[in-house]
Amino acid sequence: MDNRYETIAAIATAPGLGGVAILRLSGPEAYVIADGITRLKTPPSQRTANTFVHTSLYAADGAVLDDALVLFFRAPRSYTGEDTVEFQTHGGAVVAQQVLERLYQLGARPAGPGEFTRRAFLNGRLDLTQAEAVADVIAARTPRAERAARANLQGRLGAALEPLYEDTLRLSVETEHLLDFDEGELPDDFFLAAQARLTMLTQRAEAMLATWHEGRLVREGALVVLAGLPNAGKSTVLNLLLGYNRAIVSDEAGTTRDSLEETFVLDGVPIRLTDTAGLREAPGAIEREGVARARELLARADAVLYLIAATTTDMPPEGAIVVQTKADLLPPGAERSSLSISVKEAPEVAREALCQALRETLQLSAGETTHAALANARQFTGLTEAVEALQCANEEFARGEMGYVTAAQQLRRAAQSLGQLLGRVWSDDLLDQVFSSFCVGK
Amino acid sequence: MDNRYETIAAIATAPGLGGVAILRLSGPEAYVIADGITRLKTPPSQRTANTFVHTSLYAADGAVLDDALVLFFRAPRSYTGEDTVEFQTHGGAVVAQQVLERLYQLGARPAGPGEFTRRAFLNGRLDLTQAEAVADVIAARTPRAERAARANLQGRLGAALEPLYEDTLRLSVETEHLLDFDEGELPDDFFLAAQARLTMLTQRAEAMLATWHEGRLVREGALVVLAGLPNAGKSTVLNLLLGYNRAIVSDEAGTTRDSLEETFVLDGVPIRLTDTAGLREAPGAIEREGVARARELLARADAVLYLIAATTTDMPPEGAIVVQTKADLLPPGAERSSLSISVKEAPEVAREALCQALRETLQLSAGETTHAALANARQFTGLTEAVEALQCANEEFARGEMGYVTAAQQLRRAAQSLGQLLGRVWSDDLLDQVFSSFCVGK
Repeated sequence: MDNRYETIAAIATAPGLGGVAILRLSGPEAYVIADGITRLKTPPSQRTANTFVHTSLYAADGAVLDDALVLFFRAPRSYTGEDTVEFQTHGGAVVAQQVLERLYQLGARPAGPGEFTRRAFLNGRLDLTQAEAVADVIAARTPRAERAARANLQGRLGAALEPLYEDTLRLSVETEHLLDFDEGELPDDFFLAAQARLTMLTQRAEAMLATWHEGRLVREGALVVLAGLPNAGKSTVLNLLLGYNRAIVSDEAGTTRDSLEETFVLDGVPIRLTDTAGLREAPGAIEREGVARARELLARADAVLYLIAATTTDMPPEGAIVVQTKADLLPPGAERSSLSISVKEAPEVAREALCQALRETLQLSAGETTHAALANARQFTGLTEAVEALQCANEEFARGEMGYVTAAQQLRRAAQSLGQLLGRVWSDDLLDQVFSSFCVGK
Repeated sequence: MDNRYETIAAIATAPGLGGVAILRLSGPEAYVIADGITRLKTPPSQRTANTFVHTSLYAADGAVLDDALVLFFRAPRSYTGEDTVEFQTHGGAVVAQQVLERLYQLGARPAGPGEFTRRAFLNGRLDLTQAEAVADVIAARTPRAERAARANLQGRLGAALEPLYEDTLRLSVETEHLLDFDEGELPDDFFLAAQARLTMLTQRAEAMLATWHEGRLVREGALVVLAGLPNAGKSTVLNLLLGYNRAIVSDEAGTTRDSLEETFVLDGVPIRLTDTAGLREAPGAIEREGVARARELLARADAVLYLIAATTTDMPPEGAIVVQTKADLLPPGAERSSLSISVKEAPEVAREALCQALRETLQLSAGETTHAALANARQFTGLTEAVEALQCANEEFARGEMGYVTAAQQLRRAAQSLGQLLGRVWSDDLLDQVFSSFCVGK
C-alpha cells in the first residue's frame, strides 16, 4: 500500500532519560504542519533547505510546548527523499510526546516501524539490502557486527547481488524470447551456452550463500551451551569465560536451577553462553523443568561444551566439545578428553584452550570478511530459493527440448527471488516483513 | 573550576535502541575537531552558522564511522554560548560511541553531567533557577510537572527572586555603608525605615517559601501509604486506585510481604502509592522486617490511608485518613469513620471518595499555580536561610544601636543566600551540587 501522500511523524531517538529528543516529520504536508506548530516571522515553508532555527513550538491554545531546534530538508535531499522537518526538543517522558501529539493534531499520522526507511526505499534512495542494513547498524552489539552492517549499508551486498540478478534476468528473458518466437526450432548452441551460463550463475550464488554462516554469527552471535552432569564445574567454566562471577558456584549438586544467558565477545562475535540445569532426573518439579529446558537448548546450540569432572564416567552427546575439568585431581594420563583443563591451577591456560576449541567448532575466521556477506534469514532463504531454481533450470535444460519450458519457468523463479532480495521486485507483504522489525522513527 | 578552554563532547540522546543519536561538541576547539572527523571540500570551520550538511565521519585509519548530519553553531548563538558542532548519527550501542571516541582522539574530553548547561550558565545564557529547570523539564513525569518546570525555564522563578535579591542587597549595602562612615552617629530614621523594608522583604520571601509544598508535590509526587491490620483490604484499595490489578488479593492474612510502590496521577500530581506488610507482630522473619519497613514508611508519608475492616476494632495512627472498608458487611450506622466505602458494591464511588480525601489532606489546589514556585530542595533550603537571616536582622535592628553590626552581617547572609539561588553568587561546590544530578550530554 503506497500511502506516500500521507505525512508521517515519530520520535526518532531512544525512549528514556536523555538530554535531547528528535522528532521526524516527513511527507507532502511536512511544511504546512511545521508552519502550524511554529510562529516564525519567516515560516518554515519559506526557509532555505539545510538550515535550522531555534524557536518555540506552540500548542493549539498558544501555550509553549518547547523551545526546539527545527531543521529543514527539501525533497529529494532528505533521508526519505521527501520534504522533511526535524524537531530537536528536550528529552524525557513528556515534552517530545506532547510535540508529537500536536503534529498529529495538525494532520500528521503516526509512522509505523521503519516507515521512514520504507519511504527512502520506495523513493529509490536505497535498495532493500541497504534498508535492512540500516536496522542492522543500529542493532549491532559489537563493532564487528556494526562494520559488517555498514558495508551492506554502503551497498556491498547490493553490488554483489545486482549482477547476479541482472545476468539471471537476461538469461530468463532470452530463454522466454526464444520459446515465444522460435518454438519447434530451438538452436542447440544457445541451450548449451545457457547451461554453461547457468553453471556459472549457480556457483556465484552458492559462494554467496556460504557467507551466511559467518554473517549470522557476527550479527546474532553463537549460542553455546555448557552441559555436563551436576557438579562437573559448569558454573566455574561459565564464570571463567565471562571473566566475572555470574553463577553461584557450589559443591552441592543441582545448584544451578535456571538457564542463565550471558554474552562475551570472542573475535568480535557475541557468544551467548548458557549454563543449564544439571542433566539428571531431579527430585523437585522446578529441577525437572530445568532439565527439559537444557535438552531443548542442546538441540538449538551452535556449540556444546560438555564438561566431564575427574570423578565421573558419563557419556557426552555427539558433536559436543568434550572438556575434562578438574584435571588437577587426576593422575597424568587419566584424562578422558584431549581438552583437559584445571581452572583452579591454570585459569588463563584453561580459558584460551576453551576459546580455541570454540573458534574451531564455530568456524570463526580470524580476519573479517571483505566480501559481500548475507546479513539475515530473509536473504539466506531468498538466495537458497534462487540457487534451487537455478539448479532445476540446469537439470531441465539437460533433459533437452522437453525440459525447456520448465527451465524457463525456473529461471523466472530465480530472477524473481534475486529481485526480491534487492527490492527490484517487491510486494507490500515483503516490505511489511522487512520493516516490521525496525524501530518506530527510523 | 572554570575549564571553558577545554572542548567537551558527549552523547546527548537517551541510551538504548533508537533510530538516531546526537553527539554534542562544544568549546574553542569544536571546529578544529569537526574538521578532523570530516573530509568535506568546504570544511566545517568555513561553513555558515545555522546550516547543516550530510556527510561521512572518518576514523583515524580512514574507515567510515558513520554517515551523519552535522550541524554548525557559532558562539554566542548556541546552547552553551560557545562554538558548537552537533552530529546526528545512527542510534544503537556501537555507532555513536565510536564517533565519540574519535572526538576524544581529536582532542575533546568527556563532558561531565550537565556540563553543557553549566557552560550555558557560566556564559550568561541562563540563571541558576533556569539551569535547574532544564533538568526538571526532562525529568518531568506528568504534563503538569513539565509545565511548572517550563515556567521556571522561561524565567518565572528567576524573575520573582531577582527583585527580592536586589532589594536585600541594596539594604545590605546601605546598612554597611552607614556603619563604615557614620559610626557613632547613626540616623534613627534610616533604621526605622530599614525595619519596615525588612518586614516587607521577609513577607515576600515567606510567601515564596509557601510555594514549595505544591512545587514539591508536582515535581516529586506525594508518598501515600496504605496501612491497616492484615485483611483490612489494603491490596483491594491499591488495585482500585491504580485502576489495575497490581497486588495479589487474598483473604489469607499477611499475603502482602514486600512494600510495593506504584504511581497513579491525581490532578496532575504523581501519587506514589505504597502498600505495606500488615501491621502486626508476624511469626516469620521476613514478615517482621516488612512490619518495620511499614512503620518507617508511615513516618515519611505525605498521607496515610488507614483502612479498618468491618470486623476489627483497632486504633488508627494520628493524622491518618481513616477509611471504613467492606461497608457492605456492616449494618447502617455501624461505620467507624465518616469515610466509608465498599469496593465490592460501589467501586467508582469508593475511588472518588478516596481521591477527594487525598486532595484535601495533600492540599492539592484544583487549578495550576500561575505564580513563581520553588522547584527543589536547594531552592527551599536557600530561601529558608534567607528568611531566617532577614528575621534575625530585623530583631537585631529592633535591639537598637547594639544590634546594628549583627544586623548588617545577617543582611549580607540573606543577600548571599538569595544570590546563590539565582547563581549571582556561586562557587564550584555550588555548581557541582546543582549539576551533579543532570544527565551527561545536557
